Amino acid sequence: MPVSESPSTQPLPAYRSAVSPIDPERIQKSRDRLDNLTKPRGSLGRLEDWISRYASISGPDSCTLQKKALYLFAADHGVAEESVSAYPQEVTRQMVLNFMAGGAAINTLARHAQADLVVVDVGVAAELPEHPGLISRKIAPGTGNLARQPAMSREQAEAALQLGFDFAVERSRQGVDILAAGEMGIANTTPATAVLAVLFREKVSNLVGNGTGIDVDTRAHKSRIIEQAIELHQPDASDPVDVLSKVGGFEIGAMAGFYLGAAHSGKPVLLDGMISGAGAALALGLQPGIRDYLFPSHISTEPAQRVLLNQLTLPPLLDLEMRLGEGTGAVLAMNLLEGGVRLYNEMATFGDAGVSGKSNGA
Amino acid sequence: MPVSESPSTQPLPAYRSAVSPIDPERIQKSRDRLDNLTKPRGSLGRLEDWISRYASISGPDSCTLQKKALYLFAADHGVAEESVSAYPQEVTRQMVLNFMAGGAAINTLARHAQADLVVVDVGVAAELPEHPGLISRKIAPGTGNLARQPAMSREQAEAALQLGFDFAVERSRQGVDILAAGEMGIANTTPATAVLAVLFREKVSNLVGNGTGIDVDTRAHKSRIIEQAIELHQPDASDPVDVLSKVGGFEIGAMAGFYLGAAHSGKPVLLDGMISGAGAALALGLQPGIRDYLFPSHISTEPAQRVLLNQLTLPPLLDLEMRLGEGTGAVLAMNLLEGGVRLYNEMATFGDAGVSGKSNGA
Repeated sequence: MPVSESPSTQPLPAYRSAVSPIDPERIQKSRDRLDNLTKPRGSLGRLEDWISRYASISGPDSCTLQKKALYLFAADHGVAEESVSAYPQEVTRQMVLNFMAGGAAINTLARHAQADLVVVDVGVAAELPEHPGLISRKIAPGTGNLARQPAMSREQAEAALQLGFDFAVERSRQGVDILAAGEMGIANTTPATAVLAVLFREKVSNLVGNGTGIDVDTRAHKSRIIEQAIELHQPDASDPVDVLSKVGGFEIGAMAGFYLGAAHSGKPVLLDGMISGAGAALALGLQPGIRDYLFPSHISTEPAQRVLLNQLTLPPLLDLEMRLGEGTGAVLAMNLLEGGVRLYNEMATFGDAGVSGKSNGA
Repeated sequence: MPVSESPSTQPLPAYRSAVSPIDPERIQKSRDRLDNLTKPRGSLGRLEDWISRYASISGPDSCTLQKKALYLFAADHGVAEESVSAYPQEVTRQMVLNFMAGGAAINTLARHAQADLVVVDVGVAAELPEHPGLISRKIAPGTGNLARQPAMSREQAEAALQLGFDFAVERSRQGVDILAAGEMGIANTTPATAVLAVLFREKVSNLVGNGTGIDVDTRAHKSRIIEQAIELHQPDASDPVDVLSKVGGFEIGAMAGFYLGAAHSGKPVLLDGMISGAGAALALGLQPGIRDYLFPSHISTEPAQRVLLNQLTLPPLLDLEMRLGEGTGAVLAMNLLEGGVRLYNEMATFGDAGVSGKSNGA
């Protein structure tokens, strides 16, 4: 029976496309296989939750984790002029050049995890040279200063979301086992904190952390800037696009879209730190069904990230007090998870190996 | 000026050979290099402590982590007849065969970390077939039941220590960057808990965990068995060899010797879970200078392991609630540390990359 359409029904934008829930039978099947491998049941601890979740998505009978890709979205932030960061804005451009030269942390860790790294300029406030490793999709040369004006228009927010979505869908079509997103953007813990404070209705001062390493005074100043921006723009917590446009950032929107696209394509996707957390929170607001596809790699030192982690069904794998961004936590966890998936695929079962099972209670 | 020798001076056994302290200048040099890489200072969190510690040992100017080896010591325990484990004793032998066939967790994770796995029978209570991947150094077919008699003689304890020491020294001479030890031995959380309770003068009931997965009654029973053994044998906490011989195990002694040999050879060595922790505690008692060479890979679910971790200068890298043993935590951390060492070696410095440093407090 066709659904009747009222004239007011607008089609949802592509980035809000449906996400298939994971069949509970697949989760059970993955868990059963894990329990039959030659190790005490549950003895791999939290890694087992990750493995069975991953296998339930990838396929309980044909689980693979080989093709890995990390998309790093770079953008600038008008609010940098309010002196909320320990680093000058030009560092965003300089770090993109560093990514191109292969000298940043994420280059090294992506090589170690054998993940393909794709860098996308979604709004760096400077000209960047053409480079085979850099995709230019600049929405604008930096956002507006959210302390005085909306970060971006609603159209720009939708463009950022759609752009991230399209990258994840395109890569999934080409063939990939697992995806991750990272970011670079001086001052971006300020919009990320604002987004999380609005979406989770949390007090800003409880959420503001030290970013890349600011002092106590700068932290108090950053807190005030965020509070004032929220007061000024009154973002609507029930409308993630409104929140993104008023107090977000281009890379935050692109990451949100990327998570939506990965889940829509049925691909597991690794979260990184707090900027990633702000993107994930926006994406969850737009499409709660993506939750089962999100793998939270680590707990960062930024307090705002924890409010997002509490919303997820899976605990993070790493707690290393990292706060580097770029996707570094995501690729470290990717490598660990790959080891876990190899256990799932390569270990003998009790039956295969002729190993006796557990005695009854003794 | 030669040291005068009194007639009572006995030469120390080889496994207590001297360990060179790490030059503080090397630690500072490693830290300085890390601080000059293109990332916010300290932003890799706990991983940075691991990297700088590792680089200070390996060489601040020529740090390498490529050749990796894990020695897995297998042995049986007379106390298994007291029904302290969830698995029957024959599982030790079956799991050694599983290691030979490549089907156990440690086989897979060693492949993932590209570490060489060497399995040594130091006291399995069964005949094992000859196999190129298995070294036979059986001290005895299982220890005595510590609930009724000493686990081993003092000579056997010294043999276990020397054997582990020799493996680490020999491998270091052949050329290796990092070492680790693992173990297999049904019921071995019982002697390991006994060793840790004696050495750290802790109440047994506070230390007894669930091992491979026992129920509440078995846990209380296990506690009583350990308490009775300590009461019966009165091991001397100031004499680790006495503790090992009365309430230890062959693989625990071999691991202790292995840590001593690694540190004596100036090689970083990764700890695993609680059995490894008992070995490390014995080794620290014999030669406190080894502390700087020990890298505690993870926190297991066994409470006894925590008393050892508190003694170390470095916090563990992983907290995954694992309790599998075999060296699985050690090789997972080895892989993570390798990523960290690659950062140390491959990342650009601020100067190299033309990236601006931190502004002053703003």
